[in-house]
Amino acid sequence: MDILTIVGIIVALGAILGGNILEGGQTSSLVQLTAFVIVAGGTVGAIMIQVPIATFKRAMVIASWVFMPPKQSPQEAIEKIVAWSNIARREGLLGLEAIAEEEPDLFARKGLQLLVDGNEPEAIRGILEVDLGTQEYRDNEAAKVYEGMGGYSPTIGIIGAVMGLIHVMNNLADPSMLGSGIAVAFVATIYGVGLANLFFLPIAAKLKGLIHAQASFREMVLEGVVSIAEGENPRNIETKLNGYLH
Amino acid sequence: MDILTIVGIIVALGAILGGNILEGGQTSSLVQLTAFVIVAGGTVGAIMIQVPIATFKRAMVIASWVFMPPKQSPQEAIEKIVAWSNIARREGLLGLEAIAEEEPDLFARKGLQLLVDGNEPEAIRGILEVDLGTQEYRDNEAAKVYEGMGGYSPTIGIIGAVMGLIHVMNNLADPSMLGSGIAVAFVATIYGVGLANLFFLPIAAKLKGLIHAQASFREMVLEGVVSIAEGENPRNIETKLNGYLH
Amino acid sequence: MDILTIVGIIVALGAILGGNILEGGQTSSLVQLTAFVIVAGGTVGAIMIQVPIATFKRAMVIASWVFMPPKQSPQEAIEKIVAWSNIARREGLLGLEAIAEEEPDLFARKGLQLLVDGNEPEAIRGILEVDLGTQEYRDNEAAKVYEGMGGYSPTIGIIGAVMGLIHVMNNLADPSMLGSGIAVAFVATIYGVGLANLFFLPIAAKLKGLIHAQASFREMVLEGVVSIAEGENPRNIETKLNGYLH
Amino acid sequence: MDILTIVGIIVALGAILGGNILEGGQTSSLVQLTAFVIVAGGTVGAIMIQVPIATFKRAMVIASWVFMPPKQSPQEAIEKIVAWSNIARREGLLGLEAIAEEEPDLFARKGLQLLVDGNEPEAIRGILEVDLGTQEYRDNEAAKVYEGMGGYSPTIGIIGAVMGLIHVMNNLADPSMLGSGIAVAFVATIYGVGLANLFFLPIAAKLKGLIHAQASFREMVLEGVVSIAEGENPRNIETKLNGYLH
Amino acid sequence: MDILTIVGIIVALGAILGGNILEGGQTSSLVQLTAFVIVAGGTVGAIMIQVPIATFKRAMVIASWVFMPPKQSPQEAIEKIVAWSNIARREGLLGLEAIAEEEPDLFARKGLQLLVDGNEPEAIRGILEVDLGTQEYRDNEAAKVYEGMGGYSPTIGIIGAVMGLIHVMNNLADPSMLGSGIAVAFVATIYGVGLANLFFLPIAAKLKGLIHAQASFREMVLEGVVSIAEGENPRNIETKLNGYLH
Repeated sequence: MDILTIVGIIVALGAILGGNILEGGQTSSLVQLTAFVIVAGGTVGAIMIQVPIATFKRAMVIASWVFMPPKQSPQEAIEKIVAWSNIARREGLLGLEAIAEEEPDLFARKGLQLLVDGNEPEAIRGILEVDLGTQEYRDNEAAKVYEGMGGYSPTIGIIGAVMGLIHVMNNLADPSMLGSGIAVAFVATIYGVGLANLFFLPIAAKLKGLIHAQASFREMVLEGVVSIAEGENPRNIETKLNGYLH
Repeated sequence: MDILTIVGIIVALGAILGGNILEGGQTSSLVQLTAFVIVAGGTVGAIMIQVPIATFKRAMVIASWVFMPPKQSPQEAIEKIVAWSNIARREGLLGLEAIAEEEPDLFARKGLQLLVDGNEPEAIRGILEVDLGTQEYRDNEAAKVYEGMGGYSPTIGIIGAVMGLIHVMNNLADPSMLGSGIAVAFVATIYGVGLANLFFLPIAAKLKGLIHAQASFREMVLEGVVSIAEGENPRNIETKLNGYLH
Repeated sequence: MDILTIVGIIVALGAILGGNILEGGQTSSLVQLTAFVIVAGGTVGAIMIQVPIATFKRAMVIASWVFMPPKQSPQEAIEKIVAWSNIARREGLLGLEAIAEEEPDLFARKGLQLLVDGNEPEAIRGILEVDLGTQEYRDNEAAKVYEGMGGYSPTIGIIGAVMGLIHVMNNLADPSMLGSGIAVAFVATIYGVGLANLFFLPIAAKLKGLIHAQASFREMVLEGVVSIAEGENPRNIETKLNGYLH
Repeated sequence: MDILTIVGIIVALGAILGGNILEGGQTSSLVQLTAFVIVAGGTVGAIMIQVPIATFKRAMVIASWVFMPPKQSPQEAIEKIVAWSNIARREGLLGLEAIAEEEPDLFARKGLQLLVDGNEPEAIRGILEVDLGTQEYRDNEAAKVYEGMGGYSPTIGIIGAVMGLIHVMNNLADPSMLGSGIAVAFVATIYGVGLANLFFLPIAAKLKGLIHAQASFREMVLEGVVSIAEGENPRNIETKLNGYLH
Repeated sequence: MDILTIVGIIVALGAILGGNILEGGQTSSLVQLTAFVIVAGGTVGAIMIQVPIATFKRAMVIASWVFMPPKQSPQEAIEKIVAWSNIARREGLLGLEAIAEEEPDLFARKGLQLLVDGNEPEAIRGILEVDLGTQEYRDNEAAKVYEGMGGYSPTIGIIGAVMGLIHVMNNLADPSMLGSGIAVAFVATIYGVGLANLFFLPIAAKLKGLIHAQASFREMVLEGVVSIAEGENPRNIETKLNGYLH
């Protein structure tokens, strides 16, 4: 559970809405259906044109990571890998067969199976690197969906604002409408800028950070599996992998 | 058929036009020939100055990919490559001659012909990499035509708006014209920002994604063909290529 | 002769000026000496401070490429290189001496002379790569002169506009001047944004594309010359170089 | 103690506040709680959504570096490394055991321990490079917290300003409030732009510079330790490491 | 003496000031102490917070390069290096000892001393590359001081302008002050944008170009010195180094 995300949302919304109240404004003046339809619809539509459907679906899936990041304990993983290397020393690589079947992490399991099948270290490295790279690329593309929406929403907010201003200009004859008309037009700007800066862009950045962390966790697993294939000493493997901890 | 593109266009246009109606505006106030001439003409003119004619033509051709992306099934391709490697094992590389002639994908066919001609694995890799890189570069240049238009259209929208404002300023004597004059000027801004963010930029990004997918599909084919040339085991080829699937 | 450049200029200017006429504006209201002096002078001055004199001169020279791109036929070049490799096979590398003296392309001639002098393939590759890289760098620097002007001109247009507005503000007492004063101020914005987006930036991009095309053409020549030095088979050379065609 | 940072803060704030006084403005007109709540809260909230908690904490820790940069004397380090290489020559690598235990710098100590344990030069390089890279990455992520805040604060300043303008527009009936209402709205813009350009962005850049300096200091230590492992001549080690001084 | 820099300053300032006069404005209306204090002070303060003191000092030193670029004649340097290689051939590397002591260029002198000391070619290359890279990095950091100021000054100009507008808004009661008040506020914008685009950014770009030229000059010297250490033929050295001339 990523508490900082939730605190961040509360702080940001609290500051904006609280600031509005402090200023003597009414929260209802910031709630405006038309502006929301334009900004949200335009942004979602633009991103739908931009990405293939698989990327769009993956973006929906990994959105939950913002609150529930994938669990990874490098410390535990190092202990596990060192234990594997001890087994491989005592019982040979075939001794890892039972462990491979029970390993919950799919990437580590694939590495173990490649070990059990008796592949060369360089072949294992090659296969796992393609695997790691392909998954990292796919997840980064999904994270860019939010980055893309963070790029589109302010400009579509501007479209909404300008459309509002056109509406105002066409009704200049009725000055009593002027102020509130412009006010309504401005709400689209706030929605565009706010959605981008308080949601889409921070979410995209958090996802990218998590994807990077996952890739470097997998790189550590890869390094460990390849070291086992090379028959390296368990103590040396531990020293090497500890460099990834910080 | 890329349904998400079509849904995206409907959602985006629906949100903008529907939002305008919700606000009590008339759709006709967003339709303005002069603004369209300035923005579309200026944008197309600028990009024509920017790119060589071959790139411009290629951009026209690949535009259709947005709705009809080039079909590629990595799964099927892996099956085919594994079948080829089995044939090569049983009958020698010359056994692939008949298959090469019937292969519909031009890149794969070139790879097969290089195999049949008995080239060295490294020579095959070199030739196919140049081929892949040259085509990827050319297609990316074509995709950048839309990126370039997405860069020009908002600024040319600003030119249109400022020209409209100049026109308004020169007629300040007639205040009844003021509001609608400014309204007209603002439409150019909407066209510039809207064309960029709802069409040019999403299209450019989708094309780039498709080009990347095609290049990595071809990389997989290349890897398979080179592995056949190296006489690798069909089962190993399958394991290696499966890493590209996700 | 690059016809697309000329069509682009006509389309872009036609759209802007035609749009102005459609709107009922006068073309003369877009012609303003003061604004032009500020924007053009400021932009040229800024770029003069920025670049060394050799780069500035080179930028003047390659500007003509926008209309008359350097002629390069990869197809013909491949035929020539294959012919050279046949001569080298039959008569030895010294047989290329007469051809080297008559070769019009300076880069290809340098490659031929290195062949005739009997240099090692790796030495030839090293010398030609430094040559290619140095020229590509110099030309790209020259292209960046236009990119730089495209960056400066909109901001200097803003300086011009703000100066105009200051002038207007200082004469608020005379409201009859207000509108036309602001109109004049806006023309500087149009000049700044227009020069950048309709001339400087497209020109810089076209030059960069031409420079890249020239570099990759030379890379192909380099690859061919080195292959001849390595005594490779003419048919293989042809296959390899054909990958550069697309 | 980084005196330039303190001078910079005094100069920047002095210029802004002094300029305001010179202009005849009151400093109190620049102090506005509501605007501060919106800008600071929104910015901090957005960054909290963006980064994992470990990065956020690390950013708090390294903030102090802006005033108290981590001490590093490359000159002294070179002297120390040369002294170590002399000891290694005279007494063998085990002679460094006592020194390793007393070395205050954790990175250098790890290098010494790897030497004492008799690891191969390439193994030492590998382990120290992972260590160096992981720490540099983590610190850079922390520095990007300030860069991120520098990106969010101006846009959230705009949200604050637009919210203020909406408030003004809703009260157009009372013209006496107009000027001061807009004035209040503008303060949010100043806070957003000012916090970004006078604090967040310069701080992020200073931290990145310090992190780079630390990484290249460690690279020098790494190079020295590996050279000792390779049994290189102390005089050569000194010559090589002196290249890092400038 | 870099004449183009001086011509550029004259052209740019002439265009701005001349344009103002053409428009009927007074030069004095562009001179405003308060605006200058805010923009210059804020910009200098921000950069002081950003960079370490050594970088700030180095930036002051290399500023003079804009008018007096460091002299480098690649042509002469090639002649000198070829002469050295002839001496090394005739008299052995020790024959370069007297020349090393009199060589004015510090980088070339270091290279000669490494030759005279009889180091291996790869060791010489390693030491000189670290030296070249460290100096290039340090100078580029110094050039980025001007780039940084070019980034800060427009935004601080906006702070100045908004502060001016706040001042105006607080005095709306006195309409006679309105126009000139806004005019004063706009001057800060001009200072911010003008300093960035006519001074800081062009200076940063010119310095970066000079630093690159110096680095590639030193690369040529390095290549020559290493070739001498490898005992290469003087004629071949000349051919190779000539590739750097263009």
